[in-house]
Amino acid sequence: MFAGAQVSLYPMTDGFVDVILSSLSALDPYRERLRIETDDISTLIVGPPEVLFPALRDLYVAAAGTGHHVVLRATLSRGCPGEPDDPICQTAALANPSEPLGSRQAAALAALSEAPETGEIARAQFSLYVMGEGHHMDEIMGCIDFLKASGCFDRSKNFCTRLKGDSGAVFATLQEAFCRFGPPEGHVTIDLTVSANSPSIR
Amino acid sequence: MFAGAQVSLYPMTDGFVDVILSSLSALDPYRERLRIETDDISTLIVGPPEVLFPALRDLYVAAAGTGHHVVLRATLSRGCPGEPDDPICQTAALANPSEPLGSRQAAALAALSEAPETGEIARAQFSLYVMGEGHHMDEIMGCIDFLKASGCFDRSKNFCTRLKGDSGAVFATLQEAFCRFGPPEGHVTIDLTVSANSPSIR
Repeated sequence: MFAGAQVSLYPMTDGFVDVILSSLSALDPYRERLRIETDDISTLIVGPPEVLFPALRDLYVAAAGTGHHVVLRATLSRGCPGEPDDPICQTAALANPSEPLGSRQAAALAALSEAPETGEIARAQFSLYVMGEGHHMDEIMGCIDFLKASGCFDRSKNFCTRLKGDSGAVFATLQEAFCRFGPPEGHVTIDLTVSANSPSIR
Repeated sequence: MFAGAQVSLYPMTDGFVDVILSSLSALDPYRERLRIETDDISTLIVGPPEVLFPALRDLYVAAAGTGHHVVLRATLSRGCPGEPDDPICQTAALANPSEPLGSRQAAALAALSEAPETGEIARAQFSLYVMGEGHHMDEIMGCIDFLKASGCFDRSKNFCTRLKGDSGAVFATLQEAFCRFGPPEGHVTIDLTVSANSPSIR
């Protein structure tokens, strides 16, 4: 299995380079369990979901803590048939293939109770894509039902769903959406935007 | 059919509001053929691909022309089964369902010759997702072959492909990728990032 994300931070300030560089130290506790490569458009972070999502959360919290309007953007993927298996991605976090949708939704909700409180609000917007054989819309609609019960559902929009809450809860909810819906050997992706300190919150 | 995008501009400057507001006037020539709604995270633009992509191109060119480091991000979608049909999205731009992959690739390449020159470089990174029944990886790999022949292929990365060239060619290439691959009645999405004036180009 191969899993990871292409991640970017967009600080809306003249000092954007400093905000990015200072926030990256939030990844330090995770570096041994992730592979990280940067170019001018994004940073590739390869590793299992249970490491990846807490790392993204801490990166976001560090950037948001500067007080600037900052957006974290990520293209997340697991199980893409075009990517090689990588031992660093080994994970026990993906749902059991034979488990029905209802019990996966219940397990996802139960997992949220372990989410830490960060004190930093996250306003997120994301799309979950499930590729390959099977009933992809059933999985997506099942995920949306879970989101509505998650405690950080904000609203549905065209093409995506908005979440709002403490960053701990929001990133935990995203992790459950990524791990519990779509087949465990399947190709699942998330297109994610998380916004902090926007001057035009609606 | 329902088609459109959630679009955001991220200008990395203290004057980000001014850059965004001044760039939005680039959409004016298209407004009659699009439905546009904004909130604090993104702007929804609904309409057919042959209007949507030129509108995004002109928005990007206007923002890049300010000279600031600016990123345009878009979540594009067509044919999502969860969205209602909308007459504004009516289009003749989608490939014929019975056409084999090879002739769709050839038609996509031929269409690129009509792309205008804008004088503004675009460095883009995107993922094409094809959902539902059928051989989704064949369509994605067929699209990548087209990209490699397009003239603005930069390189493959994990989870995405990089393009580089004049904005006219890059957005035309993206439009062909969106319209010619995946079934015309299918659910196809793109996760797109376009970067201008980055201080750390690699």
